[in-house]
Order: sequence, then structure tokens, then C-alpha cells
Amino acid sequence: MATKSEQARWIWYPGDYEIWLGNRMNNRRTERGAFFPPFWKADSHYVTVEFSKTFDLAADEEIRIAAEGTFNLKLDGKLQFGMPDRFPLPAGHHQLCIKIWNQATPPALYVAGATLRTDDTWRVTCEDKEWIDESGKASDTSATLYLQAGSWCFDDPETPPSRFALPREARRAASVREAAGGRLYDFGRETFGYAVLEGLAGTGEVAVYYGESVEEATDTEHCETLDRIRIGETAVLDRATNRTEPRAGRYVLGGSKAFRYLYVVCEGGVGLADVSMEYEYAPVAYRGSFRSNDEELNRIWEVGAYTMHLTTREFFIDGIKRDRWVWSGDAVQSYLMNYYLFFDSACVRRTTWLLRGKDPVTSHTNTIMDYTFYWFIGICDYYRYTGDDAFVRQIYPRMRSMMDYVLGRTNTDGMVEGMEGDWVFVDWADGYLDKRGELAIEQVLFCRSLEATALCAGLAGEEADRAKFDGLAAALRAKLLPAFWDEERQALVHNRVNGVRSGTVTRYANMFASFFGYLTPEQQQRIKHSVLLNDAILGITTPYMRFYELEALCALGGQRAVLREMKAYWGGMLREGATSFWEKYNPGERGTQHLAMYGRPYGKSLCHAWGASPIYLLGKYYLGVNPTAPGYAAYEVRPVLGGLEWMEGTVPTPRGAIRLRVDPAEIRIEASEGEGSLYVASSVVPTVEGAAEGVAAERLADGTFRIPVAPNRPLTIRYAAVES
Amino acid sequence: MATKSEQARWIWYPGDYEIWLGNRMNNRRTERGAFFPPFWKADSHYVTVEFSKTFDLAADEEIRIAAEGTFNLKLDGKLQFGMPDRFPLPAGHHQLCIKIWNQATPPALYVAGATLRTDDTWRVTCEDKEWIDESGKASDTSATLYLQAGSWCFDDPETPPSRFALPREARRAASVREAAGGRLYDFGRETFGYAVLEGLAGTGEVAVYYGESVEEATDTEHCETLDRIRIGETAVLDRATNRTEPRAGRYVLGGSKAFRYLYVVCEGGVGLADVSMEYEYAPVAYRGSFRSNDEELNRIWEVGAYTMHLTTREFFIDGIKRDRWVWSGDAVQSYLMNYYLFFDSACVRRTTWLLRGKDPVTSHTNTIMDYTFYWFIGICDYYRYTGDDAFVRQIYPRMRSMMDYVLGRTNTDGMVEGMEGDWVFVDWADGYLDKRGELAIEQVLFCRSLEATALCAGLAGEEADRAKFDGLAAALRAKLLPAFWDEERQALVHNRVNGVRSGTVTRYANMFASFFGYLTPEQQQRIKHSVLLNDAILGITTPYMRFYELEALCALGGQRAVLREMKAYWGGMLREGATSFWEKYNPGERGTQHLAMYGRPYGKSLCHAWGASPIYLLGKYYLGVNPTAPGYAAYEVRPVLGGLEWMEGTVPTPRGAIRLRVDPAEIRIEASEGEGSLYVASSVVPTVEGAAEGVAAERLADGTFRIPVAPNRPLTIRYAAVES
Repeated sequence: MATKSEQARWIWYPGDYEIWLGNRMNNRRTERGAFFPPFWKADSHYVTVEFSKTFDLAADEEIRIAAEGTFNLKLDGKLQFGMPDRFPLPAGHHQLCIKIWNQATPPALYVAGATLRTDDTWRVTCEDKEWIDESGKASDTSATLYLQAGSWCFDDPETPPSRFALPREARRAASVREAAGGRLYDFGRETFGYAVLEGLAGTGEVAVYYGESVEEATDTEHCETLDRIRIGETAVLDRATNRTEPRAGRYVLGGSKAFRYLYVVCEGGVGLADVSMEYEYAPVAYRGSFRSNDEELNRIWEVGAYTMHLTTREFFIDGIKRDRWVWSGDAVQSYLMNYYLFFDSACVRRTTWLLRGKDPVTSHTNTIMDYTFYWFIGICDYYRYTGDDAFVRQIYPRMRSMMDYVLGRTNTDGMVEGMEGDWVFVDWADGYLDKRGELAIEQVLFCRSLEATALCAGLAGEEADRAKFDGLAAALRAKLLPAFWDEERQALVHNRVNGVRSGTVTRYANMFASFFGYLTPEQQQRIKHSVLLNDAILGITTPYMRFYELEALCALGGQRAVLREMKAYWGGMLREGATSFWEKYNPGERGTQHLAMYGRPYGKSLCHAWGASPIYLLGKYYLGVNPTAPGYAAYEVRPVLGGLEWMEGTVPTPRGAIRLRVDPAEIRIEASEGEGSLYVASSVVPTVEGAAEGVAAERLADGTFRIPVAPNRPLTIRYAAVES
Repeated sequence: MATKSEQARWIWYPGDYEIWLGNRMNNRRTERGAFFPPFWKADSHYVTVEFSKTFDLAADEEIRIAAEGTFNLKLDGKLQFGMPDRFPLPAGHHQLCIKIWNQATPPALYVAGATLRTDDTWRVTCEDKEWIDESGKASDTSATLYLQAGSWCFDDPETPPSRFALPREARRAASVREAAGGRLYDFGRETFGYAVLEGLAGTGEVAVYYGESVEEATDTEHCETLDRIRIGETAVLDRATNRTEPRAGRYVLGGSKAFRYLYVVCEGGVGLADVSMEYEYAPVAYRGSFRSNDEELNRIWEVGAYTMHLTTREFFIDGIKRDRWVWSGDAVQSYLMNYYLFFDSACVRRTTWLLRGKDPVTSHTNTIMDYTFYWFIGICDYYRYTGDDAFVRQIYPRMRSMMDYVLGRTNTDGMVEGMEGDWVFVDWADGYLDKRGELAIEQVLFCRSLEATALCAGLAGEEADRAKFDGLAAALRAKLLPAFWDEERQALVHNRVNGVRSGTVTRYANMFASFFGYLTPEQQQRIKHSVLLNDAILGITTPYMRFYELEALCALGGQRAVLREMKAYWGGMLREGATSFWEKYNPGERGTQHLAMYGRPYGKSLCHAWGASPIYLLGKYYLGVNPTAPGYAAYEVRPVLGGLEWMEGTVPTPRGAIRLRVDPAEIRIEASEGEGSLYVASSVVPTVEGAAEGVAAERLADGTFRIPVAPNRPLTIRYAAVES
């Protein structure tokens, strides 16, 4: 949100720091000692930008200036000598412009005076347009595009944004044992950070093999990541990066890795007293919580939360071992889980900027068509949960150019089909998935993206755009059922190739069409049985699509079935020893089959954000909390026990939280902001304790009850639950 | 030209190094101690690129690898450990891919083996598209855009491209004298480089005021550039850049400047034994030459050549004091002069890349509409002089996107008008220049740009584009005369506003339409008198537009008049004491009026590339050498003495030169490449000495003679000149 802070903050061109930091993040992946960056275009920051601010000072003041880059300073249009770190401002009405050039890191500015301070009310331009008049001076009626500056949490002039690093904590292994020619260190659960060699003696080479499993760590020929460190008399050399540093007793490896096990082999005459690690983490707080009478479910929530903690870093990444990249399809799920766990809005914004990159758009997001659409949908979700319209205004120009790219790739029927260079992904399926022609799932996502873009155009004040995208969305929406609904199969079919509708039904389009409201309530109930609960339809084996499958079932009132499924599927991973949730889980596989993927024995990521979906499902469909106006200005709570005896939990909101405890006879709820509506199905008229005078349960047309929830007024509702 | 070198060269993504180096160049401008970058969008390099090469090795070989950035190496698709500086390649058919990431400087690669070496046959991609298949592996049928790698002259693995700097030479002042409280050093003529403080004693502050004139250097309040250096006990601080270095007896200032005079004032207790300079220059050779019986004209050529030498640096810049930027309108003239002086093709390419920058196009080149058009025209000229179609293929995608930008800004009649954000410049005129509506000059330049783009599309094998741009050019060409030709005034009028043709005639459109062939030969002769030689038409006071004015007169056979004009105008500057030619010269001004511009007493640049046009005029219209097939595969020589008794000179060609000496009775000519045609107007049949058997002067229909000139066969032609 656009907040005028009391403290000066480092500012930059919106998105630029995020893209720069994102390149550092994405490029930390290694594969067996090789640098492994993404295979899509990496963008970069604008190298020269100008920050400006017009202000009125009641009295003279001196400002402190810090900048990342070479800069100049203009006061009221007049260039000043040099690059001052202190500058006197006279009282009165003035304009300050500071232009910064920096090739290596994003131009960033910090100004702090008694009253004038850099914050996101400053404007910034990369001078993508500027008109200068005959005198050669920049005109005040410039056509340059100005944006509100971007910022984050950096408020120390001595620590510029480019020096940011996540915090670390020293951790020791839980156990160690000899194994073949080396030692195997077990850190007790999935973790992330830097291996530390302690008590170095002699010279030679140390090989460190990382494993998310014992099998991986000790399989030196096939483990996904490894390091080789040459210990010399006076210097230590990281053989992969060629980084050399003076030898000391303790050596912290340069590259962070994901692992539970370290298998360390000393070669030559080198000896080691111990191996420990520096755990690296994002300093996010668990603002959401969930507990119930079912301890297995509680454990699922906890492991899900830890999985999210590990994958929530500078950005929301997919997995901490592999790819360690920011993928849009993974991120849009992390966002939703985040709203029920950390409510870290800044990480959503950073991830959204990075995924979009810069113009020109030359391919789909991460090269994947569906991922482009999730990018749009993620912004719409962000606005709904946070109410942050300032961010929408900043990002909207890039939504428009991204949508222009998509619209430039539609067929004569206005639908998208995979063209050269497009990756039509959908899911990793254990069976044939036809990617030809118009996929129903892609049209459904496209339609939702048009709706999202129209909404954001309106927020950005771009009325012509809003009307255009609304129109395109309506036109596409009107084509969906005629094109894909199969009355015989009572479902949307998978695709249409050259105008010929396929006879195959898959789950994807049906799930999304259901919760985007593109099906009638009757059709929704029909696909519950014809598709979602129909074992003849190709099953889903990734937690990724399981996220939506279970969401669709929950949205259709299937909480009892979903609870069983969560216990079977995520409980199944726990029974396999998981300490974080996996990229893919097929209950039919056995032993080391669970570790393999992409044709590699340890290719599977055992800590993958999309594995953590119970976090979202339990918050949204069991505790039942959902914003109905942007940023929880209004929200609904529809608790569903789904077979549990009791549950309690917290759902974070932008500036507070909603806490509730639910059993079939009593609901306690307390919220710190927003206008809430608690909906209960009760066989008796609920009593409400703690409400303002005159506030009571209201009986609705469908026989259920609505109880208003006001901020900071804890309620106790007594009722008799009727569950569907 | 695409040449496979014997020696390995550093390679990069085409245009990226040029844009990066160009930012460094453009950002060296200072104004009274303030950093002063351009006011248009600065682009940057792609931060991650992949170089690749498929090859066959007869025997095993080891390659040396050097890279600027973090890199990985794939042999036949398999990632290798670390970042090796040596790598063994087995014999056989292989593919090597090296991917490099570098935020700060352009990713660059050097590979040298017995046979495999980096050169411009390697391909490179920024992965603006890549399709990966279901297995997660990059496909061979990738849609990624590959280009031929860019390179220049860097062949030392220890000296990567980012460390490039122009050479320097120590120079001493020609004279020194005391002036007010300081000392005035005179370096004898306009120069460029770094001031050097010698024999530092004591502590205090040294102020250095730079002047292209005595007046500027000694006017400490108004001189355009200055430095302030604080001399401490142990360290020296550049107060403008905050750069500190340990104190030594000799201190070289950090920023290069243009000057003839240095006025140096010591403040506090500091003393100086002497002030000298380090002259910085591009190592270009004068491959062209011109001499005649007229010593003033010879001096004009020499000062023009020196002006070009000073402004030919990493790029062709406008002026060495101000702006020190790369401007398209200035550059296109530098290119033409360069073809008759240095024939430094690489500098043309670098400048063309820099001026274009990256997509998306958000404004005209340098924000100026006409400068966009000169950019297109410059490429066409480059191809004609050099024959370098490889460069055209590399740059063509950016020609197309630039033209798309222009076409997106045309009116309903397909013509360009200044829109918001456009700077319609034309010229600095000493009188009112209407910039409203459709300017004839802009349509003429636009039309020529469409022709240039069509030509290059053809060279790039983009036939559909070629047809499209040809069609657009033809359509616009057909509209020019109906829209702007005024039969009464016998000229193209200046502009048309809301469909109403102006009654004003200016020189601009008439000049260009004349040498682009948009006027009939009759119309061309008419505008010679109705416009070019008509004092009632707004006069031109910049050497910039004088370039074209005199070219148009020469093209119409006005060499005698142009010679008088060169002696009056450029000779006038010499008589004012010029040691290099100026940005603007109005013979009507007096004394310090000549120094002022832009409302500043020393705002005018006294060394401006566009001031050097006699270099071009003398080579092309007096020596009369002009390529008629790309790269001088064929060329014509039409010598015109224009009143001179004799002239001699050299015109460089891609791999050689054409040398000739001309007087009214004899022409001697020798060329090292290409098929030449010497045209002479003679009252007798010329005799040809030195030609192959059977080669003789051929009488043409107009009564003149054509003599074929073969490579490396010096000819002596005796004739009796008939001059028009």
C-alpha cells in the first residue's frame, strides 16, 4: 500500500530492484557444480532514472543524500556541483530532481531531512519519453512517463539495497555417522543454507554431496548438487566458482543448497573436525495458524507451513533444491497459501514484478502459456486480499503490454492455441495430455485473465482499456460452453482441434470453470460427479493440480471428502518420512521411486511450495475465511468442520487477523479489522454473545444464518451445526 | 563484414557491448562539475546470453576459455562441472554452448583452441524465446532467436572488453602565463583529454577551469566545465565525483574534457610546478586526403579532418565539449565524412547500435523525429559504402521495430506530424521555423527511410517486409509533390497544417528531395535558383544544414559557387581563429558572440563534427568519388575542379583506396579494388595511358567520356577539361 512513512526509505524504479534481485535468486541454482540459470529471457533494471519530488518547506533544512550510482542533483531546474552527501534546502516551494546512473545494480536513492524524505510518494522516470523545447531545456509539459517510486524495507543510508541478504543462523547436525569413505550428517529435516567445514587440518580436497534423502547424499555419481573445495596451505578454493579466500579454521561454502543430509568426503591429506551449516531464511512470521482434534491433520498443516517457509525467500520459489526459480504457476499458489500463513504482501509484489520482467514481451511467462494467465490472476487475487490499489496502478502498464502480447497470438475465433515458442504445460500428468488446438483450460484461464486486466484497468483509471478488456472477456465467456460443454458427458471436454471438439474429458477446465463461475450451479454439481469424483477421468498426481482439484471440491461443499483425501495424500507423504511436501507424489510408487523425476534418480524436489496446499484449503474452506471486499474491508466466514470435532485457527488480514474456534455447538470469533459476516448452518437460531446491542443472527432465505462480526468485538455463537 | 578471423576474438550479443560502452561515453558529459547524462531512455545489455557453435574436429584439442561473467558450459547438451578455463574437446562432430550471466558489464566470451575460436560465426541468443518439451529439456526445434555474435578488435583473453579504454599521450602546453590569481595554459589548439597537476606541494584546493577560448577559461563563473581538487596531506579528492586516491607528486584528473586553455587557480597553501595533459584519442588513421593549389582550402580540409579526429572516439559524437553525446543527425554526417577520411566501419556500426538501443521503442531516436529517419538512412549509406550485408542482417530486426514505431504515429494520410513527446528539430534556425502539421522535410526523410528499410529487409531475406515497405514508400512518394510542390513558387513549401498548404518555402525539403531523386531534373534545376541561391529564403547558419545545402548545390553542378562558399564560411571560422570547426557560425556575429549559444556565454561547442563537412564535399563532389555498387564493387569518379587549378587526394575503400590527381589537362588515377568508371567532360577525346589493351575512353550520349578503371592499374588520362 502507498504509505507515507515517518522514516526515509531507499527508493527505485518500480520493479527494477525486484528484477535485479530476482536474477540473483534464479541464478543461484546449480546442477552438479554447474551454474544453471533459467532458459527464458532475463531482464534488467533501467540504468539511468530520475527521481523527483515537489515540496513546500516551512523552514530551511539540510538533507542527507545517499545514492547507488553516479548522480546529479537539480534544485528548481538548476544543476548543482558534484554529488553532495549533504545539501541545504531553503524554505519555500521547490522541486528536487536527482538523476542516477548505475549499470551494475539498480539506481537507488535515499534522502532524509527534517521533513523531506524519500518514500513512495516520490516520482520516478526512466525517461522513456521526454520532449525538450527549442531552448534545449526539458519542458515542464514533458511527455515523460512518471511512476510512483518503488521501495521495500531499506531505511539505512549505509546499507544500500544492493547489499541485501537474507539472515542466517548457525545450526548443527542432529546426527552423524561414518558411511563408505566419508561422513553422513543428518540435520533432522529438510533445510536450506550453507555447509560449514569446521576445524580444517592438512591439505587436499573436500567433496560435499547434498541430499534431500540419504540415498541422494550418498550417491555421489547422481546427487543433484555437490561442491568441491580445495584446501591449500594458505587459501581455500571453491572449484566450481573459482572463488578463492584465505584459509581459516572455519570455511563457509559460498553457495546455498537444499538438503537434509550432507555426505562429506575428504580426499588427500585434509581432515575436518565437524560439519555444520548456516541456515538461511526469510524473516517471515507465521501469522496464520490451524489446529484441530486430528493430530495427523495438524501435522500436515505444520509440515505445509514449514514447506512454505522454506520456499518463501526473496521471492516465492518452486522448490529449494530444484529449480530454485520463480515460476508463475507455482507462485500463484504460494500467494494464496501466503494469505493464510504469512500475509507477506511485499513478497507477492516482488514475485509479480520479477515474473513479468520488462517490455518487450517476447514469450509467455516462464515460456508457458498457462503461466502467463496465472500471472494476471495472481494480481487480481493480490488486490482482493490486500486492497493495494497503488501496486495495481504501478503494474497495470505491464499487464496491458502482456495482454497485448496474448491478444497478438489468438486465432480467428479469439482463442489461444499453442504457437511456435509456446509451452502449453497444464500439468505433469501420468498419462497422455493432448496439447493440440484450443485447450478448454487455457481458454478458461485466458477469460479470467481478461477479467482481471479489465478490473485493474479500472483501478488504474484507464477506462477505455477497462471497456475493451471487459468486452473481450464477455465475448470469450460466451463462447466457452458452446465450444466445450458436452451434454452427454456432462462436462467440458479437454480441447478442440481445427474446430472439432474432442471426446476426452480432463479435470482441469472443469475445476477452474467451476470456481470462476463459468458454469451454472447445476453444471457445477454435475461435474462434481461426472469429473471430480469420477475415477475414469485421468487422475492428478501433482500437488500442484491437486490444489485446484480439492479447491473445486471444497467449493462444491465436499469438505468431508477433501479431508479424507488430505489425510490420504499428504498423510501418505508423511508416512513416507516427508519433512516437507514434495513436487509430485504418486501413492502407487514405492521406495526410491518417490525420489525420481525428469528421468533422474533424485530429480524430484522434496520441498516444493505447491506441495503445501492444505494451508490454503484449511484456511479458506474449513475455517472458511474469505475477503469479499478488497483488503478485508468486508469478509465472510463460512466454517465447515468437514468431519472434525473441533478446529481453531487464525487468518491474517492486512493489518490484523481473524481468529476463530469452531465446534458443532459453539463458534468463537474475533477480528481486528473489516466488516465480517459469519454464516452458519444451524438447526436452532444461534445465540450471539458479545455483540453490540441489537446485533443478532439473521435468518437467510436458504435457512442458514448470518451473524455480523465487527472489529475488536469477540463473539461467542452457540448453535447446532447442520453439515452438508 | 563477417570475416572468419585467424585469431580468436571476444564476442557478445550484437549491439550489447556497443550500448554499454555508449552509456559510458554519453555519461562522461559534465556541466560545471555536475554529472550530465542524456535525457532519453538509456538501454542496457542482455544480462544472460548463450553462445554456441557446432563444429567438427579432426583431432582432440584443448580450448582456453575466458568469460566476462558467471558461466556454464554444455558439450553436446551435457552440463559440465564449474567454470573451467581450460577444457578438452574430443575429435568429431560436437556442439558447445556457453551461457554467461553478467549484470554489470555485457556477457562476453573468448574461446581459443588449435582450430576452434570465437568469432562472428558463433551464434548467440538472449533466449527471447525458447520452447522446452515435456521432458523439461530444451528442444532442438527451439523457437529461440539466434543471431550472429558481435565482436570488435579484442583478442587478448587477459583484457576483456569491459576494460577497453582509448589510448592516451602526454602533451605539454604551448605556452603559459599568469592571469589574475592563477595561470593560463594554452595547448595551442583545440584538444581533448585529462588535465595533469604536476609537482604538487602543500595542501589546499586546486580549481581547473576549462576553455575552448581564453574568455571561457578565465570566466570562472560561466565556463562550461571545471574541476575542483582537494589536496590533502596524504590523499587527493576529486570534489565532483568524491573519488579519492593516495597523494603522489603527479595527479591526473579523473574526467576527460575538451579545451584549448586551462586556467588553474591554487587556493589555500597548495602549489603546483606545472600543468600538462594526457591527450586521449581514437587510434584512427587518415586514410583519406585532399590537397589543391588553394592553401586556404587545404587548411579547411586539415582543420575539418582534425575536427573529425577529435569527435571520432568510441563513437561518433557531436562535440567534444558539449554535448559529448551521440546524436543521430550529427552521426549520419560523421558517417559520410568518415567514408572519405578514416573509413572506420566499426565506429559506424557501434554508433548505429547505440543510437537504436533496445526494444521497446518509446520515443524517436534522441527524442527527435528527424533523427529517427537519419538513423535509417545511415544504415543504407553504410551498406552502400561498405557492402557489409552481415551487419544489415544483424540490425534489421531493430530497423523493423523502429519503423513499426514510426508507422504507429502516422496520420490518416500516412504522413508524420509531431505528436506529444516528439521533438521536431530540423535545424537551429535564426528565424521562425514552423513545426506544426506535416513538414515536407519530415515526409521526405520518412520516405527515404521506408526505402532504406525495404532495401535492408531484402538483404535480411525478409521478402514480405520488403514488399510492405516498398509499397509504403511508393505510396508516400506519390503524395509528396501533390502535397507540397508549389508551382508558383517553384519549390516545395515548408509544411501543411490541417490540410492547408503553407505559403512558406524553406530550404530543407527542397535540398533532400533533390538528392533523393524525388524531384524531376527540371524541378531540381528550378529549386537551385528559386530556393538554394535565393537570399529571400530563410538562411542556414549551422554547418549542420549547410552540409546538405552545399551537397545539393554540388549535386546540381554548383561546385564553383560551393568553393566560394566554403572559403567564405569555413575560411571565416579560420579567420576567427578556429582550430577546429564550430557547432554554429553566423558570419554576421562579432567577437564573443561567436562563443555563445543556448543562452549561455560559452554554450557553443567549438569542435563539432557537423562543422567538418568540406571533408565530405571535397571527396565526393570535387574528387568526385562515389560507390555505385555496395562496398565499392563498382564506383564512379566524376572529378570537378570547381575553379581550382589542381587537386589531388585519396578516397579510402573497404580494403584499399582510390588515389587521383586532377588538373584541367591531366588526370592520374589508381584504385586498389572495384570496377571504376571515370567520367570526364573534355573538348577532345581523352587519351588513356596504362590501361589494359583495348580499353579506351568511351564517348557517352551527352558528349562526356567514360574511362574504365581496373584495380591496381594506374592510369594517366590527358584531356581538355570542359567545366560547367
